[in-house]
Amino acid sequence: MPTRRPERRSEESAKAIVRAALELCREVGYRKLSIEGIAARAGVGKNTIYRWWPSKSAVLLDGLLSAMTVDASFPDTGDVAADFKTQITAAAGTVFRPDTGPHYAALIGEAQQDPELARALWDRLISHLTSAATQRIQSAQRRGQIRPDLTPDLVIEMLYGPAYYHWLMRQRPADAQHIHLIVDTALAGLAPANSRPDVPPAGNGEERAESP
Amino acid sequence: MPTRRPERRSEESAKAIVRAALELCREVGYRKLSIEGIAARAGVGKNTIYRWWPSKSAVLLDGLLSAMTVDASFPDTGDVAADFKTQITAAAGTVFRPDTGPHYAALIGEAQQDPELARALWDRLISHLTSAATQRIQSAQRRGQIRPDLTPDLVIEMLYGPAYYHWLMRQRPADAQHIHLIVDTALAGLAPANSRPDVPPAGNGEERAESP
Repeated sequence: MPTRRPERRSEESAKAIVRAALELCREVGYRKLSIEGIAARAGVGKNTIYRWWPSKSAVLLDGLLSAMTVDASFPDTGDVAADFKTQITAAAGTVFRPDTGPHYAALIGEAQQDPELARALWDRLISHLTSAATQRIQSAQRRGQIRPDLTPDLVIEMLYGPAYYHWLMRQRPADAQHIHLIVDTALAGLAPANSRPDVPPAGNGEERAESP
Repeated sequence: MPTRRPERRSEESAKAIVRAALELCREVGYRKLSIEGIAARAGVGKNTIYRWWPSKSAVLLDGLLSAMTVDASFPDTGDVAADFKTQITAAAGTVFRPDTGPHYAALIGEAQQDPELARALWDRLISHLTSAATQRIQSAQRRGQIRPDLTPDLVIEMLYGPAYYHWLMRQRPADAQHIHLIVDTALAGLAPANSRPDVPPAGNGEERAESP
């Protein structure tokens, strides 16, 4: 057996634990995920897991972070609508993927009962997206494309909130076409009154046919 | 002991169970809520509960429905912004109340893992709100106040999604002032291009000072 430094061994255990959590969650679902199951799959003791993580949801968050590789960077082409469409569609493509989306939804759900998880989810995942979005919004505000009297926080809610509602409340991930419609409609209301963009008509049968 | 018809006894048991679920959830939180605990508090057997409800979340949903008394009816004064401000602020006042809000959030969270609960939550609570909102939106569309080419579903997402994002992702219930700002900003983008309302400036220090 090759000699390994203890910290190296720890790092390998941590990776195995995080990988096991994600694999198991995909196989059995979030509800049946347990620290015992993760420990057995990773070949470690339960105490090893509890030394580093407070709960199964905290391990799963690390698993998701390793799998999602969300690119929070924002294009800045000068066209604020195009840039938000590009970024939100790309983020949605990662977030709503069948192998990560349900687990992310489970963590958001769990966060409603677990303030520590809510904070970790925000600090380690969502804040990276919102701080990149904030910069892009401020750049648009400097150019007079978004009302300067609105906080970037409110602008983020107007641009991202509708897709989250569609996803969490209606259980339907928003597709690119739906995201483009949200961005155009939100930006029409976020632009200063004297420089509102021409809004392309939604005008597609599919969107109209959607049932309430 | 007075003679009672069996269905009357059942109805009383059902009420006691639902009340016990809500009381217990307020006392111990959603995570520690159990069918056993509800049965003990209501003075019935576990099987009595399982005969009528598939899960603790289903019992709690009934408890919330009995406690929330959300008035889904919409004013129609002709002023679409005022009417949505009135209705959303009133609904938020009920939904975000400390004795119901956390339980509703817990059910939304649980629904991410439980399609049956997601459907029950939608059919028994949210759809009442959205169908009333849909009627008000269609009335505004007929009067040329909201773009007629947008589905009421999308309009609902634009008006309600930002407050849900604020609540579920940022863990902050939106207050009346925040809801008014969302409604004004959303409606500015939802109005037909030739009849956009003048948007009152957000212009309050508190809103600007909010951290991301």
